[in-house]
Amino acid sequence: MTETRSLVLERKGELALREIDLPTQVGPNDVKIAIHTVGVCGSDVHYYTHGKIGPFVVNAPMVLGHEAAGTVVEVGSNVTNLKAGDRVCMEPGIPDSNSRASRLGLYNVDPAVQFWATPPVHGVLTSQVVHPASYTFKLPDNVSFAEGAMIEPFAVGLQAAQKAKIAPGDVGVVIGAGPIGIMIALAALAGGCATVVIADLSAEKLAIAGQYPGIVPVDIRSQSVKEVVDKLTEGWGADVVFEASGSAKAWSTLLELPRPSGCVVVVGLPVEPTPVDWSLASTKEVRFETVFRYAHQYPRAIQMLGSGKVDLKPLISDTYTFDKSVEAFDRAAEGRPTDVKIQITMPS
Amino acid sequence: MTETRSLVLERKGELALREIDLPTQVGPNDVKIAIHTVGVCGSDVHYYTHGKIGPFVVNAPMVLGHEAAGTVVEVGSNVTNLKAGDRVCMEPGIPDSNSRASRLGLYNVDPAVQFWATPPVHGVLTSQVVHPASYTFKLPDNVSFAEGAMIEPFAVGLQAAQKAKIAPGDVGVVIGAGPIGIMIALAALAGGCATVVIADLSAEKLAIAGQYPGIVPVDIRSQSVKEVVDKLTEGWGADVVFEASGSAKAWSTLLELPRPSGCVVVVGLPVEPTPVDWSLASTKEVRFETVFRYAHQYPRAIQMLGSGKVDLKPLISDTYTFDKSVEAFDRAAEGRPTDVKIQITMPS
Amino acid sequence: MTETRSLVLERKGELALREIDLPTQVGPNDVKIAIHTVGVCGSDVHYYTHGKIGPFVVNAPMVLGHEAAGTVVEVGSNVTNLKAGDRVCMEPGIPDSNSRASRLGLYNVDPAVQFWATPPVHGVLTSQVVHPASYTFKLPDNVSFAEGAMIEPFAVGLQAAQKAKIAPGDVGVVIGAGPIGIMIALAALAGGCATVVIADLSAEKLAIAGQYPGIVPVDIRSQSVKEVVDKLTEGWGADVVFEASGSAKAWSTLLELPRPSGCVVVVGLPVEPTPVDWSLASTKEVRFETVFRYAHQYPRAIQMLGSGKVDLKPLISDTYTFDKSVEAFDRAAEGRPTDVKIQITMPS
Amino acid sequence: MTETRSLVLERKGELALREIDLPTQVGPNDVKIAIHTVGVCGSDVHYYTHGKIGPFVVNAPMVLGHEAAGTVVEVGSNVTNLKAGDRVCMEPGIPDSNSRASRLGLYNVDPAVQFWATPPVHGVLTSQVVHPASYTFKLPDNVSFAEGAMIEPFAVGLQAAQKAKIAPGDVGVVIGAGPIGIMIALAALAGGCATVVIADLSAEKLAIAGQYPGIVPVDIRSQSVKEVVDKLTEGWGADVVFEASGSAKAWSTLLELPRPSGCVVVVGLPVEPTPVDWSLASTKEVRFETVFRYAHQYPRAIQMLGSGKVDLKPLISDTYTFDKSVEAFDRAAEGRPTDVKIQITMPS
Repeated sequence: MTETRSLVLERKGELALREIDLPTQVGPNDVKIAIHTVGVCGSDVHYYTHGKIGPFVVNAPMVLGHEAAGTVVEVGSNVTNLKAGDRVCMEPGIPDSNSRASRLGLYNVDPAVQFWATPPVHGVLTSQVVHPASYTFKLPDNVSFAEGAMIEPFAVGLQAAQKAKIAPGDVGVVIGAGPIGIMIALAALAGGCATVVIADLSAEKLAIAGQYPGIVPVDIRSQSVKEVVDKLTEGWGADVVFEASGSAKAWSTLLELPRPSGCVVVVGLPVEPTPVDWSLASTKEVRFETVFRYAHQYPRAIQMLGSGKVDLKPLISDTYTFDKSVEAFDRAAEGRPTDVKIQITMPS
Repeated sequence: MTETRSLVLERKGELALREIDLPTQVGPNDVKIAIHTVGVCGSDVHYYTHGKIGPFVVNAPMVLGHEAAGTVVEVGSNVTNLKAGDRVCMEPGIPDSNSRASRLGLYNVDPAVQFWATPPVHGVLTSQVVHPASYTFKLPDNVSFAEGAMIEPFAVGLQAAQKAKIAPGDVGVVIGAGPIGIMIALAALAGGCATVVIADLSAEKLAIAGQYPGIVPVDIRSQSVKEVVDKLTEGWGADVVFEASGSAKAWSTLLELPRPSGCVVVVGLPVEPTPVDWSLASTKEVRFETVFRYAHQYPRAIQMLGSGKVDLKPLISDTYTFDKSVEAFDRAAEGRPTDVKIQITMPS
Repeated sequence: MTETRSLVLERKGELALREIDLPTQVGPNDVKIAIHTVGVCGSDVHYYTHGKIGPFVVNAPMVLGHEAAGTVVEVGSNVTNLKAGDRVCMEPGIPDSNSRASRLGLYNVDPAVQFWATPPVHGVLTSQVVHPASYTFKLPDNVSFAEGAMIEPFAVGLQAAQKAKIAPGDVGVVIGAGPIGIMIALAALAGGCATVVIADLSAEKLAIAGQYPGIVPVDIRSQSVKEVVDKLTEGWGADVVFEASGSAKAWSTLLELPRPSGCVVVVGLPVEPTPVDWSLASTKEVRFETVFRYAHQYPRAIQMLGSGKVDLKPLISDTYTFDKSVEAFDRAAEGRPTDVKIQITMPS
Repeated sequence: MTETRSLVLERKGELALREIDLPTQVGPNDVKIAIHTVGVCGSDVHYYTHGKIGPFVVNAPMVLGHEAAGTVVEVGSNVTNLKAGDRVCMEPGIPDSNSRASRLGLYNVDPAVQFWATPPVHGVLTSQVVHPASYTFKLPDNVSFAEGAMIEPFAVGLQAAQKAKIAPGDVGVVIGAGPIGIMIALAALAGGCATVVIADLSAEKLAIAGQYPGIVPVDIRSQSVKEVVDKLTEGWGADVVFEASGSAKAWSTLLELPRPSGCVVVVGLPVEPTPVDWSLASTKEVRFETVFRYAHQYPRAIQMLGSGKVDLKPLISDTYTFDKSVEAFDRAAEGRPTDVKIQITMPS
């Protein structure tokens, strides 16, 4: 353990930039990474403002941050796929590789996962971090650290898109144009949709989403999503509908949107159980998929950024230095509709 | 149109055996079938006792019955796959074969489907019926008319089983041991499950289901389904869970049952929208499938009965002659827990 | 039947622009279309130069052409989805909608399919054609007739891409940069691949394919496809490999390319059976898919063109008027490496 | 390392029961198992009679045997799912759990797999073996050691059946009634097929397979498989065809069997590449799957045996004591058509 300057959530509402003891020993299958850029996620902000998310409660000081990119500075004795100097991004979750879920390839739903900045596990708003090489991924030369730190939220979008089993030329709908909604829209579009309709009631958010060709913004204050979809599909319906608003209200009209045998991917999670009209769903034989973080999406995200198929740079709203990271969190906590992602860069 | 003696639902609560005008012209792609056996379905009984199901209201006298087997007596000029004398069973729904849904193979969700004994379409508790050859299926010699008339409800079970995408050796759970629950359990078992746990609070129903090897009855008044599943799977959970009770209450514990990445197939439809805990579902990435009747299941059901893999005969509780068909309906309306299927045979 | 001026293949090697009797009666489910643009396909040329393709032999004069777009001029009495004046493109194959394959949604493999310009069925290099409304698709305003006539070959690409079950971010490989190879590459890219490597030994063909971002041309005279794939994927292999060269030689190295559990889609068909190393394929559990024309791809293709996700215009190499259609065929028969698609426009 | 009495293949053709040094240290994630029963596999015999299989050559004395069941006698410090006294069976392959293939759940195609009795890795015809707990599976009380030692070959059948994506009521065909062919037939039947046709030219093998209800033996010396399938399916074809003969000759008629959009699972591997008629395959859009050993099938096999759905006991042809294990191998090497599986039991 070594004293390391980090952004520490002392308790609900209180952040401090201070020294804290963090592990630094590199095991045989690990790498040590000098952190370069960290994105601020809604969950980081939620721990800051609420002190907990569901069953996860901040009971002790915890380093925040889990969307990160950096440079390998040391590799363990068994590591062959990485070397010092490699520019990388990291999956924040470390599963038990021998669990039944992990062996099946479903490591994201392994109950033993240790996830950065989820109490009591420290995050990575700090100078260096030790991580398994298996969950550390090399960035292509043409992908910046800033983009590398965007891969974590984009992986959520890809997980949703993969679950949808998009067929080439599908018409998609995303309900909710927050950061995750936009990530899903981009993933669905890059993942095979011809068009993705994105619905929200914030003109600012829709403007950001709508700058991408193929994404059709719908302001639900003035337009009916169903009418837009019907026009696009001659009344047939959307092939896949992604619920990313987490709003129970969205469910009252959601099931009008999918086509016969269409799919609904539930990403946004209302706090309370949501009334679902299974009779209506059944008349169209709608399939529902749920997602929990992601598995195996980092290599896919890196391919998408490396080939230039997806450009996440327009979603980086502002960048703060590590010294100003409390300011960055306060900005993120404001929830400005024009902000998608705030990032923090570490001193080199 | 010809006057034909039929079982007519005059209005809610009133049945009559009487002559009624029915179409008898055989088009080029049609066959005419002399009806032999008709099963009484819960929906037939519901129209009798309530006069409607959801949006379908009995506003005019309607012949009941849609689970039928019989003998071809005439074939249209284009028909090559059937001939007079063939013993057959029939799908009760006739879609528009040129609709977008039908062309995709999803004819069951074609909104234009005409379905026997669904107002205002007449059913088949009558001597003869004209039907498209495409939806008329030859019975093997070793499958009786009585079994042939069981294929319609078994097809519902097969549709649910196919949606589940069972892998060989899966552990299944069926909630609800009514006629459809038992059909699903048999279909899931024949369709690849190693074991199917079936849960109900009727000892009689469980006794009927439990006579089949591989079906494990669980009386929820004295046993926990979750405990049974956990013991069977060493705590991993069921691969697939079929909700066939239509009880909103079942949903309060349903999501404890599937394994990580497991599937819930919703067959029973509560009258009111059901609160679903998407957060809990998401932590396991549960997939939900819904079913609407069936498509392409008759040939599969016939293969299952013809090979002897599935035996539906123990589920035929009693058989009435056509003359006593009102009595048969009154018996079915009683809902005796020891009754699975009541059938009616036509005079030859 | 009406005498209509058409491009008639009299026999192998002999084309004539002349009057020929063609059916003109519009049935209740049909539409009549004034042809605007017709693309020249390799199969049209092959009938011209060889007089047959496999078992299909030109034994009587036959109108050529099956890649067509035009304008509806008359609709049958049952047709509701189209009206006179609609700009449309048409699927060239008409299946028996009551066949078992068609009812399953697999109408392309229905043995009863009647396909334009496949002996003895006439094609559409003529002024007007009668066609089922179900296989006639409206073009969006922003899709030209020229693009509409490209939808047929693009549908082949989409069928291959859909069979591959591309997951978002997959790396694809196409062997062969002929017209179909390019269509597959574009479909795979739009259908979810991050990158598609296309391999050929014609620098001209590779230059045409390589103008699209995301398509990486590989000249196999100077580069190893496997090395390119290994570099892109850190030695893991391609997620999906499309064989579109029809060359038996390609098979000697094809199986080196897919990743463990990857997929090979066979589109190019060698004349002779191809030796396949099943042992090698098995060590990676490679899946193989085959394609036959397409089913349900026209609406998908139209969505792709309408949204601007795919641009096929750069593939239209030259356009001839109907009067010069023999010249157009002679040009196409040359097989210039810089030609992808030659089109013919009808007099208005 | 400890001197342990084992069945050692000294070199091609020479077996010895003698002491040999084997590792006995139990790591934290390992268990030590006292071997009870070991089945003799065709590959064990092949190493005995030929000294190699493909690239795997016996260059040093090697203990044979990889189909094993036994009793846990010691568990490592991290092991929680097993305890001393548990009756178990074991997967013979140990992958690198951090490889990309393993993390995806595809551990069987991980090139780093260490597999028992595959040179230079020792097998388990010895008194005790140390093995990872993750690949050691508890047997239900009603499954004997003899059945436990049958799980390995049955897992091959299940892998093939799962790849086929059997839908309930499918009609299957297995070409070849050797031990693996029979395992596939049983797995396919239990896995959802209504009927499985099995074809061979050995009346003895067919008699063994044909004792199971639902398996239809076809003697290809007197019957046409295609005719049998056509009769069963009214000319439609088989849903899935498993090639388990490894005979190149089988391929000349194989593609006549699948239905449109059917599947061929290639399990038998001809020594030489096999000519495949892709044109014929394409006209039906046949899908081909390949298999390599198995992944995740042991829990499925155990469920199948535990529930009584599959009975493998009739396939155990004879049992030898360890002292007579050379005799057992000589018997197995005879290849009697009436033998499916020879087993060896260890002294307790």
